[in-house]
Amino acid sequence: MAGEMIRVTYRIETSGDPEAIAAKIAADQSTGTFTELPGETEAVRARCAARVESLTLLEPIATPSLPDPDGRGPYHRADAVVAFPLEAVGTDIAALMTIMINGVFAVRGVTGIRVMDIDLPPAWSCHPGPQFGIAGSRRLMGVASGPMIASIIKPSLGLLPEETAAVVRQLCEAGVDFIKDDEKLMSPGYSPIEDRIKAIMPVIDDHRQKTGKTVMYAFGISSADPDVMMRNHDMVVAAGGNAAVVNINSVGYGGMTFLRKRSALCLHAHRNGWDILTRHPGLGMEFKAYQKIWRLLGVDQFQINGIRAKYWEPDESFVRSFHDLATPLFSDADRPLPVVCSGQWGGQAVETYQRTGRTLDLMYLGGGGIHGHPMGAGAGVTAIRQAWEAAERDIDLATYARTHAELAASLAKWG
Amino acid sequence: MAGEMIRVTYRIETSGDPEAIAAKIAADQSTGTFTELPGETEAVRARCAARVESLTLLEPIATPSLPDPDGRGPYHRADAVVAFPLEAVGTDIAALMTIMINGVFAVRGVTGIRVMDIDLPPAWSCHPGPQFGIAGSRRLMGVASGPMIASIIKPSLGLLPEETAAVVRQLCEAGVDFIKDDEKLMSPGYSPIEDRIKAIMPVIDDHRQKTGKTVMYAFGISSADPDVMMRNHDMVVAAGGNAAVVNINSVGYGGMTFLRKRSALCLHAHRNGWDILTRHPGLGMEFKAYQKIWRLLGVDQFQINGIRAKYWEPDESFVRSFHDLATPLFSDADRPLPVVCSGQWGGQAVETYQRTGRTLDLMYLGGGGIHGHPMGAGAGVTAIRQAWEAAERDIDLATYARTHAELAASLAKWG
Repeated sequence: MAGEMIRVTYRIETSGDPEAIAAKIAADQSTGTFTELPGETEAVRARCAARVESLTLLEPIATPSLPDPDGRGPYHRADAVVAFPLEAVGTDIAALMTIMINGVFAVRGVTGIRVMDIDLPPAWSCHPGPQFGIAGSRRLMGVASGPMIASIIKPSLGLLPEETAAVVRQLCEAGVDFIKDDEKLMSPGYSPIEDRIKAIMPVIDDHRQKTGKTVMYAFGISSADPDVMMRNHDMVVAAGGNAAVVNINSVGYGGMTFLRKRSALCLHAHRNGWDILTRHPGLGMEFKAYQKIWRLLGVDQFQINGIRAKYWEPDESFVRSFHDLATPLFSDADRPLPVVCSGQWGGQAVETYQRTGRTLDLMYLGGGGIHGHPMGAGAGVTAIRQAWEAAERDIDLATYARTHAELAASLAKWG
Repeated sequence: MAGEMIRVTYRIETSGDPEAIAAKIAADQSTGTFTELPGETEAVRARCAARVESLTLLEPIATPSLPDPDGRGPYHRADAVVAFPLEAVGTDIAALMTIMINGVFAVRGVTGIRVMDIDLPPAWSCHPGPQFGIAGSRRLMGVASGPMIASIIKPSLGLLPEETAAVVRQLCEAGVDFIKDDEKLMSPGYSPIEDRIKAIMPVIDDHRQKTGKTVMYAFGISSADPDVMMRNHDMVVAAGGNAAVVNINSVGYGGMTFLRKRSALCLHAHRNGWDILTRHPGLGMEFKAYQKIWRLLGVDQFQINGIRAKYWEPDESFVRSFHDLATPLFSDADRPLPVVCSGQWGGQAVETYQRTGRTLDLMYLGGGGIHGHPMGAGAGVTAIRQAWEAAERDIDLATYARTHAELAASLAKWG
């Protein structure tokens, strides 16, 4: 461990000197304060001082990311790599966040600051990582090859447990591999999770008995109280379930750590709230950095939007996110299953396949794109499978739709 | 609970119609999706649909908060109050975050979105709130009246446990009421928390025996692993300690909930990372909304910067934060002790007193302002106490310093 470093790449924006800001970050986030101190000896600095390893200047910009009413541009930008001694940080994620990320956003003199990447040394492989990941997800769903086709309960909120179970039956019969509670559904008064489990699991079991197929159902077990989350987890396990939706930002690092240590379920992460961190390109944190932490914490399946998502995220950003998830941190086993979703109906399959390395190691999740299919949910799933067949065979969708009625109907409605 | 609503005030910024965006938020965050669904019945909507209660137009602005390269202004702004049925959300903080906050930041068509406030109905008083708060903090420190004077170990990182204990002795002798680990210090290899407790607590005990005064020491117990955080907590309790620093954003809602349910310590919150949420005035979340959640979770003492802080935060923002903390949520007991800090040396006492309602219910924390005093740390504490006497008596500092040498030395150095 001696001499190992954690490296953080910051994108710095300032009307001043980016190099001075980088040096200030290194000082503030290790041994310094606003005035000189007798105790800041050489020994102390040697143990803990961070240092700026490199600085890459970027094009300056005219408009600051943070309002700068009394200032004036141009706003200089640079990517600075700051190295922190592992000795000063350790391997606790709370320490990483506090020292290398959180405090940095309070620094004066910047008009923009964004964490672009975190390079973690081998000692950080101590974290558990995914329990199931890609291989485990395939095994639990019995899908040996090809994309896993998934859906979500719609409407997202407001159905009673029995009504939800009826939607589950419909989706099972439609031929999906995976179904999830909407991330907004946890345990409200009209649909407590215990009642939902009791209503839904018999449908999953019945479908298995009839067809031999185990549809994975991810229940919304999230709670800000880890004890409650574990109680929810245990109820799912007791009923024979195998997955859960975890709203990672809403439970926090503490909730996720607690759950992963005790979990028997495949953990499907919804990253709602990530947008706050990342939507402004000059501020916050890149997904590349963000996803590393949550993978170490144990995410098995990671939702990352998709091509032409219904949300703000540009396609290039989704494509980068997909590649981030496909890149091992310490081993192949720490790659979670990418979950491509948001406004997906199959029409994006070809482009998704071509831009994400022609892999089928993904879950493709349609909500409205399945429930809203003009020929019914079964045809919605079929249309999505057809779109992926077309993608794999390098056939464009319009051509493939000529001999595939369900896909043709999707194209007519959403194309 | 029937009919109760949670109201969230959003500041919306868009080149389009703010009213349409508000309506979209209400729909997206309850029952809707991107296409019409057969299951979104009147019964479902009645149970869960959110609605826009009011819309207050603000001055438009010329520069968007989020870059809008293909768009053009003016950017219209409005504060919209959206009401969500409590029935659809319940009282779980993870549900609140997911439904009312996190998802909203993904909406297309906005160039800015900020949560200004959250109005929580009486059912939310089920959360524990502070265990000690203002009264408990005073009792534990034996400070019946006046501000509680506090300091922090400096240098912030790099001292060995015995070196830290020597600083603690110096600060006890200097006359502080409270000392804390720097928030960046948790349990690194060179200063494991168990060794720090063993080194520091005898100094606290010795000082109590000699003087009758119990100095509160807050140990940095934070960990992303709630089990580790509880182990740290238990070691502090076993050694007779009475406080802990908790890096609230770095442990998350789950970590904080878990700790508060089991805690015997006064919990001193450091909000590092809050800047990411709040620094851009058109994005993220106001402290007013943020602090409500952490108070419900059980923060006893809340760090909020100060006048002329060393960080980016403007004084007006600090003053608003102070008033936010001083405003009861459900009762006076849910008010935490405001901790005024960052670059403080006493010179800001008069203005702090005048702008925060002339209250002495606060902790005033000097780091470099005590350690770096030219006559030593004892004089640093004395100078701060003198500054607060001057504040309370409406005497300006320069006048008071004529008869108070320690304050005069501070003014000469930092004034």
